[in-house]
Amino acid sequence: MECIVRPAQSADCDHVMGMIREIAEYHNLLDEVKINSQVLRADGFGGDPFYQCLVAELGPEQGDKQGHLIGYALFFFGYSVNTGRIIYLENLYVLSEFRGWGIGKKLMSEVAKVALARGCVEMKFTVVEWNSRVLAWYRQLGAQDKTEAGGWHCMELGAEALHRLAGEGR
Amino acid sequence: MECIVRPAQSADCDHVMGMIREIAEYHNLLDEVKINSQVLRADGFGGDPFYQCLVAELGPEQGDKQGHLIGYALFFFGYSVNTGRIIYLENLYVLSEFRGWGIGKKLMSEVAKVALARGCVEMKFTVVEWNSRVLAWYRQLGAQDKTEAGGWHCMELGAEALHRLAGEGR
Repeated sequence: MECIVRPAQSADCDHVMGMIREIAEYHNLLDEVKINSQVLRADGFGGDPFYQCLVAELGPEQGDKQGHLIGYALFFFGYSVNTGRIIYLENLYVLSEFRGWGIGKKLMSEVAKVALARGCVEMKFTVVEWNSRVLAWYRQLGAQDKTEAGGWHCMELGAEALHRLAGEGR
Repeated sequence: MECIVRPAQSADCDHVMGMIREIAEYHNLLDEVKINSQVLRADGFGGDPFYQCLVAELGPEQGDKQGHLIGYALFFFGYSVNTGRIIYLENLYVLSEFRGWGIGKKLMSEVAKVALARGCVEMKFTVVEWNSRVLAWYRQLGAQDKTEAGGWHCMELGAEALHRLAGEGR
């Protein structure tokens, strides 16, 4: 299966958004998806980008399917007070009918290149426990499970709590 | 205890680095701290910043201690495919002798203001399980524990794995 991994463009946002909704459906979390393709476009391709994205598309040998998007990796840069520059992989996805061809690995490899080119020495991400196949895959790539090994918990403060904290009420 | 929270400046990096090392010592992880104040300065105050930082300093009523740094919050911006723009709180710290005066809360409140001003609707961070006092404090502020509630695991890929993935060997 030949595929090309390239940086996403503004025009890809409808397709990427379709895949984001597919993942959410798989996790039974479709009602938690609050963004749409307009928001995705503005937040990634405006003057103040909040993320970067690579997409995998079918290669020329796929005939009239050439150029179809079959996966993506969405990430941003950040910092660790221990190790310095990091890359945070928010999401990696390959359409189910194209799995087993190494497309996820190719996306990961390209994200790793982007990370190293920016001087990052670590990639962070989260995986849900019940997705044991994916967890095993990441472990095979060399990922450490900090929750299992060190008892680290993923925490989230939502909009209401942020407004309360900011002293603005709501 | 009067304190002033303000954006960190390049000249604060030595003091912030001192506090980073203190935290690491408390966690018994001093040998995992690979950065120093020069790196911290370059990564936060060069042309391509990887983080932002707020510091808490003692106010004028503290006499000759005025201006002493007693805490900090280090964060960066990112994205969630569910909710859009997020802020990621990498680290929040208050010197032990200044705890119990609401300085951590004041730092959190200022980070929340920065987050909302940038259109973020969520703050993410990680907390280690054995630090139950801190975990309880964040819960009280409205944070959800995604590891406990949904089985999310924090994962990390180090430099060696990144190089291997990038196909560069090492």
